[in-house]
Amino acid sequence: MIKEYRDDSLALHTDLYQINMAETYWADGIHEKKAVFELFFRKLPFGNGFAIFAGLEKVIHYLNHFHFTNTDIDYLKEQGYKEDFLNYLKTITFTGTVRSMKEGEVVFGNEPLLRIEAPLVEAQLIETAILNIINYQTLIATKAARIKHLLGDETVMEFGTRRAQEMDAAVWGTRAAIIGGFDATSNVRAGKMFNIPLAGTHAHSMIQAYRDEYIAFHKYAERHKNCVFLVDTYNTLKSGVPNAIKVAKELGDKINFRGVRLDSGDLAFLSKKVRIMLDEAGFPDVKIVASNDLDESTIINLKQQGAKIDIWGIGTKLITAYDQPALGAVYKLVSIENEHKEMVDTIKISGNPEKVTTPGLKRVYRIINRYTQKSEGDYIALDHENPNEEENLHMFHPVHTFLSKHVRHFEAIDLQEIIFENGELLYEKPDLQSIKEYAQSQLQLLWDEYKRTLHPEEYPVDLSEACYQNKMDNIRFIKEKVDSLQS
Amino acid sequence: MIKEYRDDSLALHTDLYQINMAETYWADGIHEKKAVFELFFRKLPFGNGFAIFAGLEKVIHYLNHFHFTNTDIDYLKEQGYKEDFLNYLKTITFTGTVRSMKEGEVVFGNEPLLRIEAPLVEAQLIETAILNIINYQTLIATKAARIKHLLGDETVMEFGTRRAQEMDAAVWGTRAAIIGGFDATSNVRAGKMFNIPLAGTHAHSMIQAYRDEYIAFHKYAERHKNCVFLVDTYNTLKSGVPNAIKVAKELGDKINFRGVRLDSGDLAFLSKKVRIMLDEAGFPDVKIVASNDLDESTIINLKQQGAKIDIWGIGTKLITAYDQPALGAVYKLVSIENEHKEMVDTIKISGNPEKVTTPGLKRVYRIINRYTQKSEGDYIALDHENPNEEENLHMFHPVHTFLSKHVRHFEAIDLQEIIFENGELLYEKPDLQSIKEYAQSQLQLLWDEYKRTLHPEEYPVDLSEACYQNKMDNIRFIKEKVDSLQS
Repeated sequence: MIKEYRDDSLALHTDLYQINMAETYWADGIHEKKAVFELFFRKLPFGNGFAIFAGLEKVIHYLNHFHFTNTDIDYLKEQGYKEDFLNYLKTITFTGTVRSMKEGEVVFGNEPLLRIEAPLVEAQLIETAILNIINYQTLIATKAARIKHLLGDETVMEFGTRRAQEMDAAVWGTRAAIIGGFDATSNVRAGKMFNIPLAGTHAHSMIQAYRDEYIAFHKYAERHKNCVFLVDTYNTLKSGVPNAIKVAKELGDKINFRGVRLDSGDLAFLSKKVRIMLDEAGFPDVKIVASNDLDESTIINLKQQGAKIDIWGIGTKLITAYDQPALGAVYKLVSIENEHKEMVDTIKISGNPEKVTTPGLKRVYRIINRYTQKSEGDYIALDHENPNEEENLHMFHPVHTFLSKHVRHFEAIDLQEIIFENGELLYEKPDLQSIKEYAQSQLQLLWDEYKRTLHPEEYPVDLSEACYQNKMDNIRFIKEKVDSLQS
Repeated sequence: MIKEYRDDSLALHTDLYQINMAETYWADGIHEKKAVFELFFRKLPFGNGFAIFAGLEKVIHYLNHFHFTNTDIDYLKEQGYKEDFLNYLKTITFTGTVRSMKEGEVVFGNEPLLRIEAPLVEAQLIETAILNIINYQTLIATKAARIKHLLGDETVMEFGTRRAQEMDAAVWGTRAAIIGGFDATSNVRAGKMFNIPLAGTHAHSMIQAYRDEYIAFHKYAERHKNCVFLVDTYNTLKSGVPNAIKVAKELGDKINFRGVRLDSGDLAFLSKKVRIMLDEAGFPDVKIVASNDLDESTIINLKQQGAKIDIWGIGTKLITAYDQPALGAVYKLVSIENEHKEMVDTIKISGNPEKVTTPGLKRVYRIINRYTQKSEGDYIALDHENPNEEENLHMFHPVHTFLSKHVRHFEAIDLQEIIFENGELLYEKPDLQSIKEYAQSQLQLLWDEYKRTLHPEEYPVDLSEACYQNKMDNIRFIKEKVDSLQS
């Protein structure tokens, strides 16, 4: 049985350890220390050369509504948490400051996508939900952009609801797909929630319900002016397409015969045959819609075979990000107030060099070459630095430091916006179409080498000299501390 | 911007084509024809030998609340649907009859998991949401059962929320993991919703917040009686474990030193070293908890290396079903009322033999051998058949029909329960613990050969003679129809 609560909230949509840490901080009186966390992923998904940031809209909604309800508190009490702490939890809302990449931003590994400055306890409690949201939505926006990149101006539609990982994924994944460049969705609720254009005609079951394809097409056309007929219920070439043509000829101007849809079989072979049949029947403008487990690889192969597909429906492989269904974004403490109320930077060490975090409050700049209007790379600097004051910017790889270059005549664009300031929402949320257009415009800044589907070049994401030195100093501090334990 | 609606419903959580077909049926006056759809998947996920059915609880909730709200109707009107049809849509609730496998049932490819008998229009409108629910939850319950199978009585916990595909997946995936055999979750909201035991202690960020591991452990222990310390923030063997032992010795009986948790590095090597350190320090009962991208393959390898892990935390690879993130269940029309109000069976043909559907109303029987108390296979029969009346049951492979056997001294157990009858909910929903126990008891009926992780034997899912013949007759009927178009 599911317990249904009138006052259900998302405050408990978190890992239990966040509550335990909150309790520790509160009991120790350090819960209101100012803490700074940054959210980033280390590795681009799908072997892609870039990612598209998505999820901010829902993060804003979550933070704006963050509080523990009565049943949340009651549940925690049943779990053994004590009254004093629970009375405190009841009072919590989100009062922090958030800087974030804009939705649709082109982003890369190891750069802070969100920066949360807040009382330690608040910043900690919100970690899990924010990662849950950003990880999935950014993953899908990126997958969609990869697919869209192959299709240019051709129409591409999201058809994945039935295979999505539960309902939130279906609707928020669809929204992310639009950000990544998709044009429409079959999910009606997503259309309603996010104002996304809808797409869809009829299914095989309609043919089965009439037990006759010709009659089924005819009945559909009697009620729907714009017709796309699904032609593969029984036999695409012998039955589906001939019946569609027959109905279209009979009804003439009464309908707009917009297309036929292929959902199985050899799409390369069938689409070429169907194109000829439609052209010969006098329907050269009727589009061919194809679907059936399509992804980047099948699209490339279909195009190589000269498939005659005008409109693409992408389901499972997009909505689940099938070849890599998780993005590994993490949320790390980079700075915290000490006992003298000064901010001190923090680090997480690992035997794995790429897992060592970069301490301190940082900003991400995109370095635009004024002549080419293309990006030279991203430049992560400490908060107080301003690369625009430098004439000759030294950019170097943060691990392989010998990989370096000097850049002149550039503009350094700060990629993060202030979203919340001391709990107040300052950011004006753009509509979905603007977000989609923003993503396209930002992709224009990248050379093609970073955007190709297979083995793209690695886009430079560099640290400033000061940021790099600060990291090295923090590593040394911890190593000395660990070594001193041994002696 | 997200539009927020007070009366948001899940009726629009469907593909647009369902609405278009509903309109066609309604305009043609056949919308109330009785139709029968069956839900099934064709292929077991992960190369596993069985699946665990999950999702019924949410399907029941969805069907019980199915209706179009005012804003749903307004939205459809904006999309161009006409008033007459929309007035009809407003009146729809679910009035059908549903038979279903129980949650926790051990299920296989090509057997009907759900059977929906309802007015055509209703059965059509609910398709997408039901598939969305069942596909994901069954996938995760199956993944969990695969992992649990390797771990026997060892404790296994679900830790995947931050990597789940949005929020519904996190909580419903966790519930499915429990059905598959998991013991606890870190997701507090899932604990609250479904009464699942919670697990979790503290994160790396707590160590970083104190900038001193010893102090951090001490502070945690001052507030929490039961302590599991995360020991890999700086250096597991040199710092983490020594600090944990130091705090435990200092605090003595004031705490229960329950365990240490490893979340990175070489888990085989570290766990063996840590076991020795704990034993030598006088803590032989302290458990070692391990996590870090674990799945079936890493578990098998860790065990082969003699890793000393007592408790397992599984995140990303479970909650996203990483190696196969979608189950391909489909929902097919198998029978419909004709113009003489008789039920006639329907079929979907495909060039792909395994995609041809099996027509007619069917039941699934598990054939239990009375001597071994093990299952001989599943037997799909037409609705009117009763295999329990047969003394000598002929079971044969539905494609390779020469693969056959005769079974005597058996009991045939009908696996489906009546859930709704004419829209009325008759089924009493079991609690989650009972569902979990049911799954375990049903797995006992299977020989080990069907349960092994790699290359399990294929469990027999056979058709009755009558069911097979009916399918062949339907194929012939369609083939003649298609051929007649050519002449």
